[in-house]
Amino acid sequence: MSRIIRRGDVAAFDASTDAIVCGLGGAGACAALEMRAAGLDVMALEGASAGGGSTRLSACEMYLGGSGGTSLQRDLGIEDSPENFRRYLMACFGEFADPARVDAFVAGAAAHFDWMESQGVPYRRSLFTGRDVVALTGDSLQYTGNERAWPFRDLATPVPRGHLPADAGHDGGKVLMDTLLQRVEEAGVEVRCDHRVTALIQDDSGRVCGVQVKADNRLHCLEARHGVILCLGGFIMNERLTRQHIPDLAAVCTRHGNPGDRGDGILLGVAAGGNAIHMGQAFVGVAHYPPAQLTYGIFVNAQGQRFVNEDVYLARLGAAVSRQTDMRAWMFIDNRYFARPDYHDTTVIVAVGETVAEVEAEAGLPEGSLQQTVATYNRHARAGHDPLFHKADTWLAPLESPPYALVDYSLAQLRPTCFTLGGLDTLPGGEVLSPDREVIPGLFAAGRTAAGIPRTGEGYASGMSVADATFFGRQAGLRLAALARSA
Amino acid sequence: MSRIIRRGDVAAFDASTDAIVCGLGGAGACAALEMRAAGLDVMALEGASAGGGSTRLSACEMYLGGSGGTSLQRDLGIEDSPENFRRYLMACFGEFADPARVDAFVAGAAAHFDWMESQGVPYRRSLFTGRDVVALTGDSLQYTGNERAWPFRDLATPVPRGHLPADAGHDGGKVLMDTLLQRVEEAGVEVRCDHRVTALIQDDSGRVCGVQVKADNRLHCLEARHGVILCLGGFIMNERLTRQHIPDLAAVCTRHGNPGDRGDGILLGVAAGGNAIHMGQAFVGVAHYPPAQLTYGIFVNAQGQRFVNEDVYLARLGAAVSRQTDMRAWMFIDNRYFARPDYHDTTVIVAVGETVAEVEAEAGLPEGSLQQTVATYNRHARAGHDPLFHKADTWLAPLESPPYALVDYSLAQLRPTCFTLGGLDTLPGGEVLSPDREVIPGLFAAGRTAAGIPRTGEGYASGMSVADATFFGRQAGLRLAALARSA
Repeated sequence: MSRIIRRGDVAAFDASTDAIVCGLGGAGACAALEMRAAGLDVMALEGASAGGGSTRLSACEMYLGGSGGTSLQRDLGIEDSPENFRRYLMACFGEFADPARVDAFVAGAAAHFDWMESQGVPYRRSLFTGRDVVALTGDSLQYTGNERAWPFRDLATPVPRGHLPADAGHDGGKVLMDTLLQRVEEAGVEVRCDHRVTALIQDDSGRVCGVQVKADNRLHCLEARHGVILCLGGFIMNERLTRQHIPDLAAVCTRHGNPGDRGDGILLGVAAGGNAIHMGQAFVGVAHYPPAQLTYGIFVNAQGQRFVNEDVYLARLGAAVSRQTDMRAWMFIDNRYFARPDYHDTTVIVAVGETVAEVEAEAGLPEGSLQQTVATYNRHARAGHDPLFHKADTWLAPLESPPYALVDYSLAQLRPTCFTLGGLDTLPGGEVLSPDREVIPGLFAAGRTAAGIPRTGEGYASGMSVADATFFGRQAGLRLAALARSA
Repeated sequence: MSRIIRRGDVAAFDASTDAIVCGLGGAGACAALEMRAAGLDVMALEGASAGGGSTRLSACEMYLGGSGGTSLQRDLGIEDSPENFRRYLMACFGEFADPARVDAFVAGAAAHFDWMESQGVPYRRSLFTGRDVVALTGDSLQYTGNERAWPFRDLATPVPRGHLPADAGHDGGKVLMDTLLQRVEEAGVEVRCDHRVTALIQDDSGRVCGVQVKADNRLHCLEARHGVILCLGGFIMNERLTRQHIPDLAAVCTRHGNPGDRGDGILLGVAAGGNAIHMGQAFVGVAHYPPAQLTYGIFVNAQGQRFVNEDVYLARLGAAVSRQTDMRAWMFIDNRYFARPDYHDTTVIVAVGETVAEVEAEAGLPEGSLQQTVATYNRHARAGHDPLFHKADTWLAPLESPPYALVDYSLAQLRPTCFTLGGLDTLPGGEVLSPDREVIPGLFAAGRTAAGIPRTGEGYASGMSVADATFFGRQAGLRLAALARSA
């Protein structure tokens, strides 16, 4: 299978346009809109029978802030300086962060919210302060990451940055993509669905100047005079690639995305000389909340030890569980706080008892281990602190109301949702880079086809993917248009 | 920078041969020897002024077994069935293991030892049973991995598999490479040193048919009628690639390898359509032994908790430390067992005290945490077991002889040795594979340019790299020769 066709081998193009966007999810729609706004002729190719991508399947939280605050944050009296936003993002991803990308995002994220509103996506000026994955209250702003959890709360002032379409709950992605796709249509983007991109066309200088697509059961060659933007999602649905790059997770996870997340964009980009980075990084969602009360529980590993502050975001918990012996972990909780987690309603209770010792024995944990862990935790919780993992005092309470339960959160049992974070190395303007970080002319990428702002599950927050995809989709469109003007 | 030259753009070749080996370390020398033995004309290109590569810098342990035992194992009365060898390797790498590669290695590793001896590499029929990284006793067989440590000892019968050139100590690589390079010369391989490979030459069908090299300050094109084998090492010396792929480790590690380990082979292979896998995996060496007595110490993290059985191999310890909060860890040890570790003689003692409480307070560990950990450990050690991490009873003794010390093994402080494990995806015969696992004709890889038997630091054992490089270097040579015969 060749993913590159040489320009000289193309007898004639079936069609020609200024720019081609491959994939019409959040990133592709935004890229197309910016290029049309700049006056380019744009063709958008979508492999499915309608646009939407994985953005449409999401709740469509968008992780935004900086510039003193988005208009939504400011209207709610929340300040978010660029320094604060940057500190948080850099703390999230540490050495994995791409400072240039973070800087571009910090500078433009607040204006991106205004742009989204100007497209017609509805937001309500209301804040949800509870602990949930997606606010089901209709509110449009909430905490969606580790902002209030240690160590982040000490590194940056916690502010809520998850922007949700009003009243949409889990359907935010439908609201957003319906809106954006209507704008795409109005703007005169030539949308071709059921068009699967099979190869990039590259001229002798290495410049990408078109694509080959399969449609109507035959192959077509389409010219893109100023370049191609790959917005074809991640690779979580590709069995071979996930087994190659995240083999341990591939064996236990529930794949989260749309069927088109096969990694085609990444593979096309690499074939053209691009560099795939962080292919071993993934989001692993271990959501013990909602209900928020479960945050009072504690997690232990096979040694009966705690290993995380339980008030973290679900992907940070997932990363922590995946680092324990055999990726096994359990929640210990008492009768006062016990509940079934909404997102993992098939969790298995492995032990119940009137004493911690009973639970420990029934679960086969090392004798004394759980008892010691619970006694230490309870003693500190009574004093209102957690010297080991610094769980916020909001969630500290001694677990002392029997019966007690131990609930299995081992990954092989839980089968947590998982999606990939690796992708093409790009400049903030979307230009695809070679392993030497040289630009591949005419080729751009955005969304999960690129390695974006979120680069590890440990630092992830809900809304980072959609914010990154839509923001950097726009940047890629703007950059291609700017280069076209100066060409 | 283009790493691919099209055949049609080569006006004339400066020289022509049957096969070209790029890189004359352990993998390249073995590949060249097998191809010469099969009657091919072979050119070996080495970027440095002499062959040797990172193999020459190593102690040259080779991790071998199976087939009932190598002749060295059998002469010492040690049995190692293929099933046992395979069980151990699969346990080491879990979902990361490549079963086809493991199977090929298990089937041929014992015969590979005989081949090495037949080349003239000297081995002594003597066993070192102590705990060390490299036996300095002159013995030629020792345990070099996690064979005797939990959980491996329960998954496969522990046998020593590290084969060392006799009396060589840390100089085994010199012994081996001097021997192999002499055989290479005798065999009539055309060796060209100071020849740096800059590009692969690919014909219109995608077949690799030669290389471009820089030598004598100009570029030469060399034809390889039957193919090219890339044996150019890993990428630990490439600042950009390590920051891209192992950013957290790149910030703290001491780079281990020869200056040529710049990833050129991987980049050339990817440019030709190959697939780089496991680029985020690395060996991180935290060697608290020798002296072996330090194994009696215990490691704790920032929570004052143990997190590993301390009798593991140094790379498994390195992997465990890298998973702790901020990659920090300390050894707690008493006066009876205290010593300076040979390989980390600049370790910092952060606290000393007559009681555990004193040490805990001086180090700033959470109050009670270290005391609880030590008390629990000591109680179990007295009873001869370790229910948490199953450290072997050989290394269990209560730590109760003050003064006590806490020694810093945090990675940022220790700056442990590190080398990369990611590389090109290949078949056991060395054929470089595309992301779709289709063979790229004419292109082979071995050694750390390929993703080999060892794929995670967690499962690594000393000798796996040299064994893999030399064994699969030979396989690549044999495969290329077989394909040449049938061409």
